[in-house]
Amino acid sequence: MVASHLADVLSKLQPLNSDHASVVSMNLFVALLCASIVIGHLLEENRWMNESITALAIGLCTGVIILLTSGGKSSRLLVFSEDLFFIYLLPPIIFNAGFSVKKKQFFRNFITIMLFGAVGVIKFFKEMDLGSLDMGDFIAIGAIFAATDSVCTLQVLNQDETPLLYSLVFGEGVVNDATSVVLFNAIQSFDLTNTSPGIALEFIGKFLYLFVASTLLGAAVGLVSAYIIKTLYFGRHSTDREFALMMLMAYLSYIMAELFYLSGILTVFFCGIVMSHYTWHNVTESSRITSKHAFATLSFVAEIFIFLHVGMDALDIETWRFVNDRRGTSIIVSSVLLALVMAGRAAFVFPLSYLTNLANKSPSDKISFRQQVIIWWSGLMRGAVSMALAYNQFTRGGHTQSHLNAIMITSTITVVLFSTVVFGLLTKPLIRFLLPHSKVTTSMLSEQSSPKSITTPFLGSAMDSFDDSPKGVHRPSSIRALLTTPTHTVHYYWRKFDNAVMRPMFGGRGFVPFVPGSPTERSEQNLSQLH
Amino acid sequence: MVASHLADVLSKLQPLNSDHASVVSMNLFVALLCASIVIGHLLEENRWMNESITALAIGLCTGVIILLTSGGKSSRLLVFSEDLFFIYLLPPIIFNAGFSVKKKQFFRNFITIMLFGAVGVIKFFKEMDLGSLDMGDFIAIGAIFAATDSVCTLQVLNQDETPLLYSLVFGEGVVNDATSVVLFNAIQSFDLTNTSPGIALEFIGKFLYLFVASTLLGAAVGLVSAYIIKTLYFGRHSTDREFALMMLMAYLSYIMAELFYLSGILTVFFCGIVMSHYTWHNVTESSRITSKHAFATLSFVAEIFIFLHVGMDALDIETWRFVNDRRGTSIIVSSVLLALVMAGRAAFVFPLSYLTNLANKSPSDKISFRQQVIIWWSGLMRGAVSMALAYNQFTRGGHTQSHLNAIMITSTITVVLFSTVVFGLLTKPLIRFLLPHSKVTTSMLSEQSSPKSITTPFLGSAMDSFDDSPKGVHRPSSIRALLTTPTHTVHYYWRKFDNAVMRPMFGGRGFVPFVPGSPTERSEQNLSQLH
Repeated sequence: MVASHLADVLSKLQPLNSDHASVVSMNLFVALLCASIVIGHLLEENRWMNESITALAIGLCTGVIILLTSGGKSSRLLVFSEDLFFIYLLPPIIFNAGFSVKKKQFFRNFITIMLFGAVGVIKFFKEMDLGSLDMGDFIAIGAIFAATDSVCTLQVLNQDETPLLYSLVFGEGVVNDATSVVLFNAIQSFDLTNTSPGIALEFIGKFLYLFVASTLLGAAVGLVSAYIIKTLYFGRHSTDREFALMMLMAYLSYIMAELFYLSGILTVFFCGIVMSHYTWHNVTESSRITSKHAFATLSFVAEIFIFLHVGMDALDIETWRFVNDRRGTSIIVSSVLLALVMAGRAAFVFPLSYLTNLANKSPSDKISFRQQVIIWWSGLMRGAVSMALAYNQFTRGGHTQSHLNAIMITSTITVVLFSTVVFGLLTKPLIRFLLPHSKVTTSMLSEQSSPKSITTPFLGSAMDSFDDSPKGVHRPSSIRALLTTPTHTVHYYWRKFDNAVMRPMFGGRGFVPFVPGSPTERSEQNLSQLH
Repeated sequence: MVASHLADVLSKLQPLNSDHASVVSMNLFVALLCASIVIGHLLEENRWMNESITALAIGLCTGVIILLTSGGKSSRLLVFSEDLFFIYLLPPIIFNAGFSVKKKQFFRNFITIMLFGAVGVIKFFKEMDLGSLDMGDFIAIGAIFAATDSVCTLQVLNQDETPLLYSLVFGEGVVNDATSVVLFNAIQSFDLTNTSPGIALEFIGKFLYLFVASTLLGAAVGLVSAYIIKTLYFGRHSTDREFALMMLMAYLSYIMAELFYLSGILTVFFCGIVMSHYTWHNVTESSRITSKHAFATLSFVAEIFIFLHVGMDALDIETWRFVNDRRGTSIIVSSVLLALVMAGRAAFVFPLSYLTNLANKSPSDKISFRQQVIIWWSGLMRGAVSMALAYNQFTRGGHTQSHLNAIMITSTITVVLFSTVVFGLLTKPLIRFLLPHSKVTTSMLSEQSSPKSITTPFLGSAMDSFDDSPKGVHRPSSIRALLTTPTHTVHYYWRKFDNAVMRPMFGGRGFVPFVPGSPTERSEQNLSQLH
């Protein structure tokens, strides 16, 4: 009943009806968004808070007020539509993630998710006797809780103070989200009621197909945009047209993935990577500044929107009423999920760090235990993507055990709230405690990290995308040296290919050294000096 | 029947359903948007074409193809939702209009619209014996066709070649749209079935209330944004937050107007003006570049979206079938509307130019007859706003004469198509013909235009908003002198007030002279030299 109720309600969301009540809601919501930004900014000095937590808190407070004024009927301003999320809010977030970072560490998380989903959750729920959650549900739960909330974490870490940690956590978080969503897509198109090796193989095949096809589609759209802008706009640039084309092509990649039943998330993520590598370097100075900040801002607003909503949604009475008679179960499920999140993350952070340390010879390259703890801790927060996937899995489709679904929804909300608020609030003090002189430690680390290890590309720097951005000025020069020196990895051959084939065709700055004398750089340095 | 059919269909539009057919439509639509931008850019060299006409043409072609493939059933990809237009597409266009221009010539158009609507149309339709179109409909038609398509016009005029004409047409077009929409709002909340002096007075009162209240609301929201950014962000700027706040506050002003039953268009327009005057000067360099281009791009994409859609919608079979048996009537109505558009515009351009010329003593200040013709001609195009208002008036509400409504819709489409394509295509050649040495004539004109005349504020320069934008460098210095020299107009007192009260509170560059030595200017000049 909750399922059908929610599904019914989900299909009805309109941001602004002719109905005056929804205009009021809309106003309140936008005003709260503004308030979250302003208050989040004011609390920035306070190292315990960030915008996500602020938005969550404001959402919760508003939810309480609405609950009281409406006489306990509802705590929501807008009904959270999964469509709204997947059409408007998620694409800018994921595109910006791809646009502002470059990563090659995708497959690492696959193992964790499978381990987490298949082994941990199945065992647990079998024992809980919660009814007929099937194999698909278990992997879905794995996928849901594999989506790290990278944004919340990043607001806690500081790129200047802890560059290595920042890049590790950032790149990982983004890829995590993408893996989750791809896995989730793969699961939903499968009938996993009984597990056999054949089905498992088929499932892996489907996952690989989705992954490869989505990546290729995203890269292709990105390359087309680079080619168009390079060929047509040469000599007579127009910022508005260039930016419009980038925006539209990025969105086109997302909906093209939908068209071919691929993963839009992954497509738009790789489209962002390709665009930042090629297209971004073909446009004018103004277009670069505009696109960089406008994409980041859209992503930022979408994030705050989601957190604000999760805060309000947490108090939704309909769902909680259902769980009321089995409150104990809900608490146990939430706790176990949280424990699994922590165990699942530990299960790959520590072994992988161990492997990385084995491959490195010099002691200064090694990731210290304290840093491992921070990497582990920073990935514990769960956010908007988890919420969206949970709604997707447990309020739609052919589920009839509404009881179970209600428990899963409330447990997800509990985990998201708890991890964001508690873990989020404790992260800054934890970093202070574990790395009291972090500035020295981490800059040393990044300065001496060797490109020779095999694991480095997987845990490597995420900061080569906007090298010529204002922040690049403060960065240690050895990172740049690392990028320009040929290394004996796959990356080396990719660079050769990029320089020989790709760049003449699609433009882009490529891996050439940073020439401070070029007019573009000069004006950028002027700009950065002003900041 | 058409009315109820359309109203039914209008309420159902969802940009992306779970339905796969709508994903296909969405893909095609975004791809066509990209194509319009690229082809429009390619045809830019050809002075006869522009993006609007390109989008219209592509829309028409696509409509024909869909019509043929669907077996004559439908010519549309997406059903044009009035909500879609008023929630997503119109606000960025109007906000950007306010953000990139400053104008004080609002009330001039009021007379034209009333003249046009009340006198011309009533007489005509009484004679046509078209049934019971009431007084409200007549004024509505006036309002609909008063909305000049400024964007199309501006793509034809060149800011560098003909600065005075550009500012005249631009400012006027924007204000025209706003007047139309305000009038339209006022009409819709009135019962104008019988005309009496009392009702006319009440109507004017309502219009004035809407106008003043909307303006004040827009200005208030703009000032709040300026105050917040000035007070809170001083010393530690963040481009993403600043831009996010500007965007959200602008949208907030729009929906707040809806909340108070005011005119959102007018509110967001004045919010844009205030933001460009105060807020824009309180943010960082990157935020300025980003906001300027991002707002312009959003507006640009929204415009192309609308034109593409109008092109497709023009072939909508349902509406045309209805008109089929009275094809003659439809053609006559369209022709008369076009004639009225031309006559109505002539009725105020030439007298007003005459008055302006009377007030100016020196012969070089006068607007020549050739220039008057261009001003008249440039305002003949009708576009997206007219379409939206026509749909609003003739497909919703309590209208029962579906026949008449269908005729009005098809006539509107005809006028929009004809004026955009024919007048649009002929504008460039006309300017070439009338002003063969336009560069000299107009720069002379703008160089010597005196601030002493009374009409100048009404026909005055629209280019003081982005004075420090790259284009400012090429502008004659006398405009700047005009701005910094105190004049004996209302503007003078406003400047004094601005400097004494407003600027200390809300920031902004105000009317101080352009200091090329300041760090902000230096970097901007660097940027502009690169272009």
